[in-house]
Amino acid sequence: MSALPYAARATGLVGSVIDSSTSLLHKQTHDIVRFAMGSPAAEAVPSQILSAIAADELARPDAYDYAATEGDPPLHAALLETLRGTSDETTADRLTVTAGGMQGLDLFCKIFVDPGDLVVVESPTYTNGSATALSYGAELLEVPVDDDGMIVDDLPKLLDGRRPKAIYTIPTFQNPSGATLSLARRHQLLELARSWGSMVIDDDPYGLLRFAGDPLQTLRELGAGDPLVFSVRTFSKIVAPGLRVGWVDADPELQQLLINAKQAMDTCTNLPAQRLLAGFLSGGHLEDHLVRQRAEYRLRKEAMHAALTEHFGDIARWTDPEGGFFLWVTLENGVDTQELFEVALAEGVAFIPGPAFSPSGRFSDAFRVCFASTTPDRIQEGVTRLRRAVDKLAAN
Amino acid sequence: MSALPYAARATGLVGSVIDSSTSLLHKQTHDIVRFAMGSPAAEAVPSQILSAIAADELARPDAYDYAATEGDPPLHAALLETLRGTSDETTADRLTVTAGGMQGLDLFCKIFVDPGDLVVVESPTYTNGSATALSYGAELLEVPVDDDGMIVDDLPKLLDGRRPKAIYTIPTFQNPSGATLSLARRHQLLELARSWGSMVIDDDPYGLLRFAGDPLQTLRELGAGDPLVFSVRTFSKIVAPGLRVGWVDADPELQQLLINAKQAMDTCTNLPAQRLLAGFLSGGHLEDHLVRQRAEYRLRKEAMHAALTEHFGDIARWTDPEGGFFLWVTLENGVDTQELFEVALAEGVAFIPGPAFSPSGRFSDAFRVCFASTTPDRIQEGVTRLRRAVDKLAAN
Repeated sequence: MSALPYAARATGLVGSVIDSSTSLLHKQTHDIVRFAMGSPAAEAVPSQILSAIAADELARPDAYDYAATEGDPPLHAALLETLRGTSDETTADRLTVTAGGMQGLDLFCKIFVDPGDLVVVESPTYTNGSATALSYGAELLEVPVDDDGMIVDDLPKLLDGRRPKAIYTIPTFQNPSGATLSLARRHQLLELARSWGSMVIDDDPYGLLRFAGDPLQTLRELGAGDPLVFSVRTFSKIVAPGLRVGWVDADPELQQLLINAKQAMDTCTNLPAQRLLAGFLSGGHLEDHLVRQRAEYRLRKEAMHAALTEHFGDIARWTDPEGGFFLWVTLENGVDTQELFEVALAEGVAFIPGPAFSPSGRFSDAFRVCFASTTPDRIQEGVTRLRRAVDKLAAN
Repeated sequence: MSALPYAARATGLVGSVIDSSTSLLHKQTHDIVRFAMGSPAAEAVPSQILSAIAADELARPDAYDYAATEGDPPLHAALLETLRGTSDETTADRLTVTAGGMQGLDLFCKIFVDPGDLVVVESPTYTNGSATALSYGAELLEVPVDDDGMIVDDLPKLLDGRRPKAIYTIPTFQNPSGATLSLARRHQLLELARSWGSMVIDDDPYGLLRFAGDPLQTLRELGAGDPLVFSVRTFSKIVAPGLRVGWVDADPELQQLLINAKQAMDTCTNLPAQRLLAGFLSGGHLEDHLVRQRAEYRLRKEAMHAALTEHFGDIARWTDPEGGFFLWVTLENGVDTQELFEVALAEGVAFIPGPAFSPSGRFSDAFRVCFASTTPDRIQEGVTRLRRAVDKLAAN
């Protein structure tokens, strides 16, 4: 039936579960409790502050021109200042502004990944992160995750003598598991990477959203300028995802290549959002905003835990993240979570089935829920619906 | 000296001339007449209208969330309505919103271009367009351009029996030459593409900016739904480049692949700019805006022609575009335009040297000037400076 002369590349195979899920979601018109998307709560987005900044910044005619590809200077400067004294403090020649964290991953792959290269990913991992590596022809190796993040001890055995081009990790409040890579494993991962000459993609979108426990040094900080460490950051989770602004912190030698590669992707990051963020940072709004977000997300995670204990205590186990957005639930009653998805949607609740987070389709007994975007009473309602869906499916 | 374990891919080699040029430009602090960048005139950007729309749209908390990957519904709908009755009229299932036209090209290459594939480009061509094909491993074949656009007659001979995966053309007011592909050649190009089963990338950012002559049917319209034709459009030149919003018009069968591929690039296009554009289109501002732009750009092109005739009549020839942004000047006195670049910058005028527009580095006797972003009196001043630079270089 296809009139296309060429097979299109299956760049998004891994994402297909999410794609069909979100496509179904868009078509749903009735009330749905949305645990699926990894967005900040709508009420947690500082839209009033951003709108007030817009009134000044977007009235300026120069707010709509092409931006410098490495980032608009006011944002570049405000970001450096914001990061000063943190575990992500850096210098101008290491910093490139991107269209969200996702583009940071795409840039890495465009520059470094050749067809057939081996890239290590966590299992489960971020769907679109592994999809972009696949789109450049990478072969993926999945390494299991436990409560302390990637099981780094397993890595040499799984590699079986091969050297990975890159190791992709979300070290803090991992997507989708919520697990955090322990300090010991962070050191161990960097040592192994050095011994193999492998790049480390340090993707840390949630690190600033810690609501319990003590902060850990980032891989970037532990790497202390090691050119092997390529750090990807974003404003998507800490301010607002729709702005599509993030940054890459990488060896200065890479900056011109990042600029060249980005020019052949989208020329530059949209300027109005860069201006809004520059105003947000230089106005000193970020820290207050994070304090409020952390407090709210802690309440929501506790609400999710309480609801799961009440409704799923007999048939599932789940993770206990100290920050971020996500919980990972594993069912122990044999229900397939991809089959569960449509039944749950009919009951009025959405989540992402486990196989979407594994290039090889593991985790059909598990699913991801985002607790951050839903109020505590809606969380209770959503988990109640979810249990009803599980029971319906199990009864069939 | 490099501590990187892997050779990074030279994704932006073609862009390096422009990169170093724009980087030099950013460092210049004195008054420069800027013929280099292909941006709309700052005063031609409807910033007051956009700012007024922002006051409403960006006060809404939902303006900062992830957008649907295929495009925010209000923009999708307003764009379909705007295109109705034009040579680019289309349907929802063919339309995918992108981060500018550049991302449309990146999406095409991510989906279709495999290492070693042959991609035909015009010579000269748009630097970042050929760079993105190179970044996916394409081999490029350059086909010369004359006053009627790509010399399609030369194509079979240059191919020498090979079948191209894709033919990349900017048919209208081409970047950088300003030439327009004639109607006869449009038909001929489509016929050849069909005979070879080659995709046609129809990149048309300037078509709506015609200030002289009669409009031609777009390749999209002539193709009449042919799945071989992949059309790339953008708001960058007709509204504002910093918004980073464009669209792709392609076979409906491709839409899910485009969504998957885009999710592994930047997740979605920034939502605030989509809301601003939806308001701009549905408020009926585009047509008035285009009428004003066309009139102004006609004056500027005439100013550029007059200045060139006065200062370069004895040593150069140039093209006569009926719309768009660019003129292509060929020097006949042996001056190398890459050498000229720094001398000209010291004199206070910037342009892009010819070799930046050729993957094989042709056109060292030529350069591109953008007449659209500079007022007529500044154009006169810039061309005066440019002649001074040529004379200085020739005297050395």
